[in-house]
Parts: sequence; structure tokens; C-alpha cells
Amino acid sequence: MSDGVQAAFGDRVRLHRTNAGFSQEKLGELSGLHRTYIGHVERGEVNPTLGSIVKLADALEVDPGELTSGL
Amino acid sequence: MSDGVQAAFGDRVRLHRTNAGFSQEKLGELSGLHRTYIGHVERGEVNPTLGSIVKLADALEVDPGELTSGL
Repeated sequence: MSDGVQAAFGDRVRLHRTNAGFSQEKLGELSGLHRTYIGHVERGEVNPTLGSIVKLADALEVDPGELTSGL
Repeated sequence: MSDGVQAAFGDRVRLHRTNAGFSQEKLGELSGLHRTYIGHVERGEVNPTLGSIVKLADALEVDPGELTSGL
């Protein structure tokens, strides 16, 4: 895995989050993940698990496949 | 995240692996992941990271989104 994959995933999360009009804190609440973790994800600093990917997708109301396609 | 998500992901990996005609050992070699880890993934026993998901998808020659869509 490369940091490029994490960064691309993070960009996608940020895009969907801002499109939804959510703050990082709001996405944290909706997904059950900590708001600081959302920041780490969006900056490509972490390698999220499948479980976290699904939680983020559910909170963003997108299919998990949309968050990982083309990575 | 639920074990159901991990199990569904594992089933999908196994399906693509067997369709490709790969043993777990072969998929391990191609993905750079340990063959015993492949077994854990397919049995839904682990929560794979984005990095591992992308490695598996690359080795199986499918889009990462195909492995996570609908989960």
C-alpha cells in the first residue's frame, strides 16, 4: 500500500463530507468515529480498516465501493 | 462494523480468488500478504486495512470498489 492510496481515499472522504455539508465533528458523530480520526483519514495519515470504511460510507450515505473504487 | 461485513468481504475475496484459479498461497504471493492472512480474511476473522484491500484487489485484478461495494 502506498500513502497515495490513503491520500486519495482521504480526498474522497473530504469531498463527500463537504458535499453533504458536514463538519468533521458531525461526520465523527454520524459514523461513531472520533473527529480527530476523521482529520487523520482526510489527510491520508492513517490506513483505515474495512470497518471504518463502511462506517464512513454509511454516515456519508454512499456505497463503500464508491469510497474505494479506482484506488 | 459487524462481523457480517468482514464475512461478506471474505466471501467476495474467495469468489474472485477461485474464479482466478489461485490457491490461497498463490494469492498471498501475488498480493505480498501472508497465505495464512488470506485464510483469515476469507473466513471473515480480520478487519483488513485499506492497504490490504488494495493489495488484494490488485492481485485479483479487480477494482478495489468491487471488493467493498454493497458492504
